[in-house]
Amino acid sequence: MNWIFEPIAAPAADYYLKAQQRQQQLTKPPGSLGVLEECAARLAAMQRRAAPGIERIHISVFAADHGIAEEGVSAFPQAVTVEMVKNFAAGGAAVNVLARHIGAHFEVVDAGLRQPVALPNVIADRAGAGTANFAHGPAMAAAQLEFALAVGRRAIARALDHAAQLFVGGEMGIANTTSASALAAACLQLPASEITGAGTGLLPEQIDRKAAVIAAALQSHRSRLDTPLAILQTLGGFEIAALAGAYIAAAQQGLPVLVDGFISSVAALLAARINPGCAAWFFFGHCSAEKGHSRVLQALNARPLLTMDMRLGEGSGAALAVPMLQMACRLHNEMATFAEAGVSQG
Amino acid sequence: MNWIFEPIAAPAADYYLKAQQRQQQLTKPPGSLGVLEECAARLAAMQRRAAPGIERIHISVFAADHGIAEEGVSAFPQAVTVEMVKNFAAGGAAVNVLARHIGAHFEVVDAGLRQPVALPNVIADRAGAGTANFAHGPAMAAAQLEFALAVGRRAIARALDHAAQLFVGGEMGIANTTSASALAAACLQLPASEITGAGTGLLPEQIDRKAAVIAAALQSHRSRLDTPLAILQTLGGFEIAALAGAYIAAAQQGLPVLVDGFISSVAALLAARINPGCAAWFFFGHCSAEKGHSRVLQALNARPLLTMDMRLGEGSGAALAVPMLQMACRLHNEMATFAEAGVSQG
Repeated sequence: MNWIFEPIAAPAADYYLKAQQRQQQLTKPPGSLGVLEECAARLAAMQRRAAPGIERIHISVFAADHGIAEEGVSAFPQAVTVEMVKNFAAGGAAVNVLARHIGAHFEVVDAGLRQPVALPNVIADRAGAGTANFAHGPAMAAAQLEFALAVGRRAIARALDHAAQLFVGGEMGIANTTSASALAAACLQLPASEITGAGTGLLPEQIDRKAAVIAAALQSHRSRLDTPLAILQTLGGFEIAALAGAYIAAAQQGLPVLVDGFISSVAALLAARINPGCAAWFFFGHCSAEKGHSRVLQALNARPLLTMDMRLGEGSGAALAVPMLQMACRLHNEMATFAEAGVSQG
Repeated sequence: MNWIFEPIAAPAADYYLKAQQRQQQLTKPPGSLGVLEECAARLAAMQRRAAPGIERIHISVFAADHGIAEEGVSAFPQAVTVEMVKNFAAGGAAVNVLARHIGAHFEVVDAGLRQPVALPNVIADRAGAGTANFAHGPAMAAAQLEFALAVGRRAIARALDHAAQLFVGGEMGIANTTSASALAAACLQLPASEITGAGTGLLPEQIDRKAAVIAAALQSHRSRLDTPLAILQTLGGFEIAALAGAYIAAAQQGLPVLVDGFISSVAALLAARINPGCAAWFFFGHCSAEKGHSRVLQALNARPLLTMDMRLGEGSGAALAVPMLQMACRLHNEMATFAEAGVSQG
């Protein structure tokens, strides 16, 4: 899996500076478009274009099952993972609705459900039949981790086949906030209780139990958790590894990424620990209501575009934020300058 | 001007409850769409529809000049008001770009520039040739206030002629953060220094001077500032009164309103003080970087959809938030229920 360490080019600083200069000339007080100005300048740098644009968006939702679900850490039964995959395939989930609204190309990938699903529009790219229960051993074998990372890379290849200008990743996997919380605790060296939240809707005593499961696993695996890849192999999920692989591959290919919520941000954190250059290619869609998300965003030095108290995953918060990036580009490209409009400067 | 006190019907509680019940049945953990769920339910109640929608949006930008500009309270010269009106008419301002992106009907209204502009696509509905300098006397005569409120009402009549489902108001007027800060201080009984901010880009010592101008005016007019209408007449601007009139008229007609930033929110506060029933028809687009905005939002019990550090006015922050309301509706209408998708509930 040498590919994940291959170098990542930085976005073009000259385009960034030129875009910032143009922002100063547009008919508005300097800085008055707030974070939209920075978004436009970063996209100009990533696309190496004076007039950046986000017309073609690729959304991949990676689904996988988690052995840790056996510990009773989710408000929903494990069967919901595959049931939701069918819902994605039928177009009935939140992310489908948002994908239609923004005109995105949408795909759902079975990255490792317990059982394969026989549906023509589900991409089967399976790292295994669900992860092992990390309360009792590593979640995956080294070969499974390698495969799962490459699942993400293959999604980016498909995105580029569609000439995508933005990649949005989503995830589905009952119990995956438990995996993501364990990963974040291990990466950030935080106690499990500080990062563990309600997931799909646990009660306070259930959250305590979930944190205890994570704390015990961190303790029993502590000798193994010495590199980001080892952390991912020991505590991760196939869909989380696929997201991390997709984020690295996107950055290697110069494709901007819009990261979703808690689980996706944990994947982004792992990606940035594995290959730090990828972080320059990330936007963050929203701050989730899930407890650990703000800590993970802080570690990534990320300011998300939206704060809607969402906690759904699937890529939904990122899809919702796509119009912000699109409008940032259009403002940058289409507003008149002071000179063009004959408006006096302050 | 009796019309502004005419009663306002509340949005339909039965549609609100039915929409909330539907949200519980959609394939997602309860509450996981955050504020979008509440937006959809409120729009269902306003539109009296099980399937709410925002397809047709009407944006009116009201422009007017301010006598208080003589006090040197803005980073831009007063000529910029009319220059920006020409920019709106030519389609080069931020709000024009956003209006195109969301497919909104856009109009700019001269509600009281110092000099009329001879452009066919500027609606002349002039309450006067700019307000008087409220450092020396009331900003407007009673008849001018009445006229300016009716400017807003006429904009709502045009919006309904276009079958609009959402009204977005914007404003342009050099020195109008000074007027809005004075209005907010008078309504909320706050010291001028607590609400006065940088506007289009004042330096700290200039902000102090602006606050001193406002404080002196509040002091000299104190015996007059006993009703919302008296406050508006004494310290207001024609465009701010037009916005307040538009918000009241929209609510009377059952047309949902998306409020923009600081100045628009001050107009919304005055509208709610004049005819409290209108507040049930308001959404708030964004929290501005302008200092006083969060205090005004708090007084309105408002949670804005976006926080982008914008401080431009023109309706730009509200226009940016329109896709949030549209996607809230589509999620509500198009997501599958647990029963339809065969997904297990927690």
